[in-house]
Amino acid sequence: MDLTKHITTIPDYPKPGIMFRDVTSLMHNDAAFGVCIERMSEGCLNKNISKIVGIEARGFIFGAALAKHMGKGFVPIRKKGKLPRAVFSATYDLEYGTDTLELHQDALDPGDKVIVVDDLIATGGTAKAAGQLLERLGVDIVSFLFVIDLPDLGGAENLRTLGFPVSSLISFPGH
Amino acid sequence: MDLTKHITTIPDYPKPGIMFRDVTSLMHNDAAFGVCIERMSEGCLNKNISKIVGIEARGFIFGAALAKHMGKGFVPIRKKGKLPRAVFSATYDLEYGTDTLELHQDALDPGDKVIVVDDLIATGGTAKAAGQLLERLGVDIVSFLFVIDLPDLGGAENLRTLGFPVSSLISFPGH
Repeated sequence: MDLTKHITTIPDYPKPGIMFRDVTSLMHNDAAFGVCIERMSEGCLNKNISKIVGIEARGFIFGAALAKHMGKGFVPIRKKGKLPRAVFSATYDLEYGTDTLELHQDALDPGDKVIVVDDLIATGGTAKAAGQLLERLGVDIVSFLFVIDLPDLGGAENLRTLGFPVSSLISFPGH
Repeated sequence: MDLTKHITTIPDYPKPGIMFRDVTSLMHNDAAFGVCIERMSEGCLNKNISKIVGIEARGFIFGAALAKHMGKGFVPIRKKGKLPRAVFSATYDLEYGTDTLELHQDALDPGDKVIVVDDLIATGGTAKAAGQLLERLGVDIVSFLFVIDLPDLGGAENLRTLGFPVSSLISFPGH
């Protein structure tokens, strides 16, 4: 199955010149969503993964489905102010302003081996902040795993430069 | 397995007098998360369900895992401004102010039979707004399905009064 065909491209959204890659059409489709999660899991075999981490909000959809499929627990990394217990926080730059991610301090143990899931990697700012949070807990990031990579924006390459393995199912060169 | 034991209760959060029921400890646990999703699916058998709908954000975690487990597609109902194509919107009251949910107009077809998933039902305002959106698409809501019910807040009862079946895995009377 060519999963690329299940991504809807919306020109000039959210602003002129941007080709928005919409994953909702993929997740709506019974077969495509199933194949997507199964392909994500294939790269995680034989790596003694202890938990799946997902980044709010679309990373929850793919990450939690992957966690259940693999028989693992799911750990959410959330936007600021959403987690009720003690958290670590990491702030990262957006095009205009900043955003903050948070992780419960007791969500994982040192030495836990995790896969970090999000729907899409563009510049990688969000993923890098997630990596910083996980490293504060002493967690071993086995890989970042995305449905879509926009390689011209350099995010996956930035993560690899930081020492993190990265994989994705779909790539849109030229974004 | 008693799933109730996997819920962390945080007294006086987010304000004095509230007992916050935190589902993150349940989803962190491999076995508890798996059992939770399997029990959710048991109530959905033999009902010709076509899609699973999840409400942002924690409803994405349980809804998407349930969708993959059942071999169904997943349809997200999101907070305002997050969906890129044409949407229907429903606004509902919060304790202070209002919030808005949105659903892609082409996410479902008339006659689709759906289960609507969220982590918790309290007063039911969010679920009721989700129901309004789905009814605009002519969708058949087979059931609302929650991990946690706070029955003293009346949300499940309100949904039943509107004609919607409701089920949940865990109940905290007295909330």
